[in-house]
Amino acid sequence: MNRIDVYFTPAEAGRADLAGRQIVVIDVLRSSTTIATALRNGAAKIIPVETVEEAKRLAGTLDAKTRLLCGERQGKRVDGFDLGNSPREYASARVAGRTLVFASTNASPLIAGALSGMPQRLLGYVNVGAVAATLVADGGDVAIACAGAQGGFSLEDAGCAGALVSRLVAGGSPVRLNDAAEMALAFDRVHGGDPEAVLRRSEHGRYLIELGFGEDLPLCARIDSVPVVPVVRDGRIRGAG
Amino acid sequence: MNRIDVYFTPAEAGRADLAGRQIVVIDVLRSSTTIATALRNGAAKIIPVETVEEAKRLAGTLDAKTRLLCGERQGKRVDGFDLGNSPREYASARVAGRTLVFASTNASPLIAGALSGMPQRLLGYVNVGAVAATLVADGGDVAIACAGAQGGFSLEDAGCAGALVSRLVAGGSPVRLNDAAEMALAFDRVHGGDPEAVLRRSEHGRYLIELGFGEDLPLCARIDSVPVVPVVRDGRIRGAG
Repeated sequence: MNRIDVYFTPAEAGRADLAGRQIVVIDVLRSSTTIATALRNGAAKIIPVETVEEAKRLAGTLDAKTRLLCGERQGKRVDGFDLGNSPREYASARVAGRTLVFASTNASPLIAGALSGMPQRLLGYVNVGAVAATLVADGGDVAIACAGAQGGFSLEDAGCAGALVSRLVAGGSPVRLNDAAEMALAFDRVHGGDPEAVLRRSEHGRYLIELGFGEDLPLCARIDSVPVVPVVRDGRIRGAG
Repeated sequence: MNRIDVYFTPAEAGRADLAGRQIVVIDVLRSSTTIATALRNGAAKIIPVETVEEAKRLAGTLDAKTRLLCGERQGKRVDGFDLGNSPREYASARVAGRTLVFASTNASPLIAGALSGMPQRLLGYVNVGAVAATLVADGGDVAIACAGAQGGFSLEDAGCAGALVSRLVAGGSPVRLNDAAEMALAFDRVHGGDPEAVLRRSEHGRYLIELGFGEDLPLCARIDSVPVVPVVRDGRIRGAG
C-alpha cells in the first residue's frame, strides 16, 4: 500500500480516478452498520439501489417470500417498506436467508451510482479492524469514500475514515496520504478514543436522537463489534470475514 | 454569534443558505495571503474575476497606467499577465495605488461566482486575529467557505478554518458548530501550533515547492503578520483593519 486517499463527499470520490484501488465506502449512521449487522445475522444478500422507486420496481420482480424492502428517507422507514435503517431492526429472525433491497439516502446512491460497477467494501466503526485486515492482506492503494450527508461533509464518516487510516498507518511503513486523509487522521488522534461522543456531537447523530433513534448511536459506535466485511460486487453486497 | 458553519468545498458553500451570515472565504495558498499583502502594500482595490478571459476583457476597459492584470493557472502566472499569485510579487513599488484585476484558480471563482453579490471577508493565517476581531465585533452567525482545490478538500484551508474557529470559541460562550467546524477545530488542536508544517505537508504546498515557490510557504504560514481584513463588497476587494 503506497497511497491512502480519503474523499469527504461523494462528488469528490466520483471525480477521482479510482481504477485499480481498494475502495472503501463509509456511512456510519447508519447504512454501514445496518448492512454489516444484517449480513452477520444471516441475510443472503443485499441489493443497493439509488431510489425508492427503483427499490419498489426491483422488489416486484423478486420472490415475495424471501425478499425484504429496506431503506429510509430523512432517517425514517419509507412508507410501505418492511424495514428502515436501524441496525436493531435487522435481527436474525427477520433477515436470515432473505434478499434485502436497500435504498438509503446517502450510501445507496454512492454504492449503486457514483461507484457503480466497482468492487467496494463497506466500513463502519463496528468492523474497522476486519476491514483494515483485508486491506492490509490485499495490499493495494486505498481509496476511502465517505457517503456524507446530502452530498456534504459528515463528521461521523470522516471520523471513521480517520479510525481506518490510523490502523493502516500504524505499521509505520511510509504511505502517502492525501489532504483529507491527513485531516481525518488528526481528528482520530483527538477523538478516536470515544466514537460514541463523536456520533452524539455530529449533526446527523443529533437528528437521529430527535427522531427517537438515540439507542442506535452506541451500537453504531461499538468498535469491532460486528467483524463482517460487506463486499459490493456486481451490484450485490455479501459478507466476508 | 450563535452558529459557526464551515464548508470545506465551494459546492457545499454554494448550496448553503448564507443569508444574514458573516461570510469568510479562505484560500491560504495563496490568494488570501496575496490579496491581504497587496492591500497592506497600498493597492487601491482588487477586482476578482472568474476566468482569464474575463480578466483580459475587464483590463481592456481600465486605465492602462494604473491597472495590473494578476492571477495564475496551475500555480503559474498566466501568460501576458503582470503578476502571478505569489505574495512576494506584490511589493509596494509594484502595487501601491493600483487597481488589480485578479483571476486565481480557486478563490476568484468562489468570490466572484458562487458567493457573488454577498459581502465577504478573506482569511489566511496572516490575518486570522484581525478577521476574528471583526467577526466578534459584528456578532452575527459565521459561515466559513474554503476555496479548496479544484472543487475538492484542501488541508491548508481547512486548517486555517480551524484556527479561526478556535479563536471564535475561545471566549467560552456556547456556539453551535456544524460537522466541518468540529473537524477543523480538532485539527487545529493537533496541528494549529505549526501552520508552516501543515502547508509543507499539504498537497498544494508540495506542488508549490516543486514549482519553485517554496519560499511562499513560510510567508503564508506566518500568523497575524498581515493584519488587514480584505472585504469583498459590490465586486471589489478593499482593505479594512
